[in-house]
Amino acid sequence: MTPGQTVTAFISAVERKDLDAACALLAEDVHYDNVPMSKSDGRDAARAVLAPFVESATKVSWPVHRQTETGNVVMNERTDAFDFPNGSVAIPVMGVFEVNDEGLITLWRDYFDMRTVETALASLT
Amino acid sequence: MTPGQTVTAFISAVERKDLDAACALLAEDVHYDNVPMSKSDGRDAARAVLAPFVESATKVSWPVHRQTETGNVVMNERTDAFDFPNGSVAIPVMGVFEVNDEGLITLWRDYFDMRTVETALASLT
Repeated sequence: MTPGQTVTAFISAVERKDLDAACALLAEDVHYDNVPMSKSDGRDAARAVLAPFVESATKVSWPVHRQTETGNVVMNERTDAFDFPNGSVAIPVMGVFEVNDEGLITLWRDYFDMRTVETALASLT
Repeated sequence: MTPGQTVTAFISAVERKDLDAACALLAEDVHYDNVPMSKSDGRDAARAVLAPFVESATKVSWPVHRQTETGNVVMNERTDAFDFPNGSVAIPVMGVFEVNDEGLITLWRDYFDMRTVETALASLT
């Protein structure tokens, strides 16, 4: 897989709510940075950030609007949408990923507006 | 110039505070979207958004940490820093650009955290 295909497979696994498959594409020491929210180091820590959202959602849809890749760096523009039992949220996001020679994601950094997240979560009934 | 080189030249012109040179790289109907803040259409409108920040800054520095390009789409990860007479601000940003066959930027969309901007501006003395 190219780095871009690895990122596509990762996003696809998240959308299937298959955290095992998603996290299998993360390097053991992956740095996962939600810029305005939290940073974490390590595959287990990344999973601990993702799990509450993914597991409580009835549907996860992260459409990628555009994706570019140069060397081992992949960037994409997405809408990260979750359907929860009590409503839906959809967050505009840009992410940057680095993929190592073993095809594992070593860096995942997402840029978004924290107030947009807070407002969306507060709208859940 | 490749699309990536056009974007690099644009960022460089902004850093020189040369709005004429920067805006000469924007298509007349450019869509400029500061996701959590404002959207504008047209070169003149984009300039009107940029000018207050660039013209009141004593120094503009937008280091690009990573840049990727695929086809006519360019994405970058930057820190947009401004020195003002009353202090400095530095905002983590990801941007997506589309460049047309004439080498002009038709789309510029920046993702960042609005509260980070507000906090930085409020810290100016």
